[in-house]
Amino acid sequence: MTFLPVEPLRPDAPQRRIAYDPARPLLRPFAPARALFRAGAYSPRDVLEARIATIEADEPAIAAFVTRDLAAARRAADASTARWRDGRPFSPIDGMPVVVKDMIETADLPTQMNNPIFAGWQARRDAAGVLALREAGAVILGKTVTTEFACGNSGPTRNPYDTTRTPGGSSSGSAAAVGAGMAALGLGTQTHASTIRPAGYCGAYALKASFGALPVGGLAPLAPTLDHLGIIGASLEDVWAGAMAIARRAGGTPPHPGLMGPEEAPAPRMPRALVRLGTLGWAETPDGSRAAFEAAVTRLARAGVRILDASNDAEVAALEALLANIADWATDLLAWEARWPLAAYRAHGAGMVGERIQDLLARGAAMDAARYRAALAARERLRAAVAAFAPRADGFVLLCSSGPAIADHAFTGSRNFAMPWTLVGGPAFALPLLADGDLPLGLQLAGFTDRDADACAVAGWLRDTLLPERDER
Amino acid sequence: MTFLPVEPLRPDAPQRRIAYDPARPLLRPFAPARALFRAGAYSPRDVLEARIATIEADEPAIAAFVTRDLAAARRAADASTARWRDGRPFSPIDGMPVVVKDMIETADLPTQMNNPIFAGWQARRDAAGVLALREAGAVILGKTVTTEFACGNSGPTRNPYDTTRTPGGSSSGSAAAVGAGMAALGLGTQTHASTIRPAGYCGAYALKASFGALPVGGLAPLAPTLDHLGIIGASLEDVWAGAMAIARRAGGTPPHPGLMGPEEAPAPRMPRALVRLGTLGWAETPDGSRAAFEAAVTRLARAGVRILDASNDAEVAALEALLANIADWATDLLAWEARWPLAAYRAHGAGMVGERIQDLLARGAAMDAARYRAALAARERLRAAVAAFAPRADGFVLLCSSGPAIADHAFTGSRNFAMPWTLVGGPAFALPLLADGDLPLGLQLAGFTDRDADACAVAGWLRDTLLPERDER
Repeated sequence: MTFLPVEPLRPDAPQRRIAYDPARPLLRPFAPARALFRAGAYSPRDVLEARIATIEADEPAIAAFVTRDLAAARRAADASTARWRDGRPFSPIDGMPVVVKDMIETADLPTQMNNPIFAGWQARRDAAGVLALREAGAVILGKTVTTEFACGNSGPTRNPYDTTRTPGGSSSGSAAAVGAGMAALGLGTQTHASTIRPAGYCGAYALKASFGALPVGGLAPLAPTLDHLGIIGASLEDVWAGAMAIARRAGGTPPHPGLMGPEEAPAPRMPRALVRLGTLGWAETPDGSRAAFEAAVTRLARAGVRILDASNDAEVAALEALLANIADWATDLLAWEARWPLAAYRAHGAGMVGERIQDLLARGAAMDAARYRAALAARERLRAAVAAFAPRADGFVLLCSSGPAIADHAFTGSRNFAMPWTLVGGPAFALPLLADGDLPLGLQLAGFTDRDADACAVAGWLRDTLLPERDER
Repeated sequence: MTFLPVEPLRPDAPQRRIAYDPARPLLRPFAPARALFRAGAYSPRDVLEARIATIEADEPAIAAFVTRDLAAARRAADASTARWRDGRPFSPIDGMPVVVKDMIETADLPTQMNNPIFAGWQARRDAAGVLALREAGAVILGKTVTTEFACGNSGPTRNPYDTTRTPGGSSSGSAAAVGAGMAALGLGTQTHASTIRPAGYCGAYALKASFGALPVGGLAPLAPTLDHLGIIGASLEDVWAGAMAIARRAGGTPPHPGLMGPEEAPAPRMPRALVRLGTLGWAETPDGSRAAFEAAVTRLARAGVRILDASNDAEVAALEALLANIADWATDLLAWEARWPLAAYRAHGAGMVGERIQDLLARGAAMDAARYRAALAARERLRAAVAAFAPRADGFVLLCSSGPAIADHAFTGSRNFAMPWTLVGGPAFALPLLADGDLPLGLQLAGFTDRDADACAVAGWLRDTLLPERDER
């Protein structure tokens, strides 16, 4: 096991810049390799060695990992190779190379949460999602960098397309590793924006499933009614198969019985109508990103999708008005619910947690139950407004972030595009189909609560329509 | 710090037997001492030394503790003494001696869950309830014995009134320590019966608050829609003040904003009507316990309370019919929801977890989402049936257990009397007001969801009515 102590950005790390082409990304999907496994022409061990070669080449610049255990990964890949050779894989993701955000417990590697309180801390159990992935045959490469406790100081990870930029957070390392082709799947978490935003910044696919549809057992809790397990992947197919492999073995977060749908991604399906959302993020979105989004929406409309937006639909205008006022109460929800564990961390000494965490704690301490109840009620109103579109739309299109990855390493970017569907609790996919200049720009397809498979089918159609010539190796 | 490794019953431990008199229990309430602190006649340090003397005398026979840190407790008690002397206590429970079940995380002592996988394991954070108690000035003495992961093999603890008998489980050590007068408050957990049953067996008061009203953050999860933080205490006043000290500082389990009510126990209030329940447990209840319960109900009726039961009220008969059929679906809820973490523990090796845990895992593995949904629906029907009594009753009286502590150490007793209110999610108090022969027999007063303070006021009246001559030192 390589143990890298918790650390900030490495100033002497090599720089790199690679122009992003959505049709030829660095992503290395797993699903296409399966036919080769069956034919004996290629193996999970071969997949792993190729990913290790990428890690060896690129990790100095990207710094996605906190800990790795490549010896254990090789043993797991060899066992998977034998299962495929015998025609008895555990699941469609048997042999898939996976990384795990360092907020998620693993029985074999420390969980350090990018804070010195947890340096070397060992959970002695796998989180529900990790255990399920192992049971499905996945090959776990290591733990990836998170921002401090998923809400504080940034870590050392850099964007795989431009190392002067953030990978986004808080699932920084999982998004960068998948985006760079180091792994096919990365577990993350999302409490406000922590899966969809970094996936968009790093050119990766992702799913934040319906609230409760994937299990949060073994994730370090932050805000229980907001915490989601996030799935970042090299393709829509990998993301869906990874999520289903977890849900079929571990269920959801009770009382949710777990994500429902086919074991592999449903066939792409053209939507009749989509709602186009600007949200609070639009005002801060640069022109290049606006233009890329507009061009994509225009292509969808030309393909025959009816686009509802605030200019042509009063109900969308009303929803946008609600979305323009979420920032305060969404932060209230987080600040109140995160008082514990954050106060328990601060109890080690006020200097042991970063300034953002101190600020959140101060906000939580200033709240009372009435203000928390008001935030819960505001969320219910937003949920009802979104659900009311079900009879006349197949989903919602918006960006994953207000522009591409920012040229900053202390700040991981605005939450304004990713936060809405965290609050709604419906499924949201990050689709790395757009670019702003040389940088990835994620398109977000959001759906109706507990209709994740329907949203996945629409996401597949968006991908096929906007990226017909993609190169998927 | 005294570190005692995880262990089974100690065959050579001294035996003891003390006849239980509800008016003169071993309990050592904290609340009455506060007037003396203010007057300077007595101090939290004096309280602590008295409790330590009890521990030194009785722990060899009772084995309530897994770890203790009496030096830290003395420091905390001295700090509390200074606050009272200065007229600035943090709360009504400042200086209260508290013990913590070993399923609940503490930053300073290991959390070992009575299973060798967690021998010496250190959480590096206080659970929400523990942190809140510290912030309120409580003096934490140590961690107490739990059954394995709160659902498996029993630990070494024995009943303080008869060491040949179980203290009940899974909060075995907290109930025994409070019952024996070693501490004024003990944190426990309840997922089926784990607080109310051991409190009843050990002659202690307890509150299982409304579901969500107290925070489960930092409790090792077992079944998220069933897990409660349990409060065991030396008096109704201590239990209520302890629960409120936690809720006012840490809130509830989101989205519940937290237990509401006065900081100290509400004044006792006579109920107009109470529902008397037999439940599944009645058939297995011995004659002496039945007679003690009947006598208590008769006294309540004579005092002017209208008693509704299955013989005189069709709605109660219908509720009893529902309660006669909970065992299967209640076990389904537990088995499905506890698949993780139990599977993650078993992943250390099948021999690393006890037989009861293997059985639960087998049951969970045989279930599907439809069966889980059916169990959730059955629970909703039970909740609706109970809530329908709100206009015409002030609460429900039943036993805490089907008789006094059984003469067994492997089995911690039937869950049939404590499980119903876990499922209902309403408040339930254990009141050590009855005896069967020489043994404690707990009376349970159950209330309506989120009306915990109302239930506490009724519980106080029951105590004053059934135990007018109690000796509270």
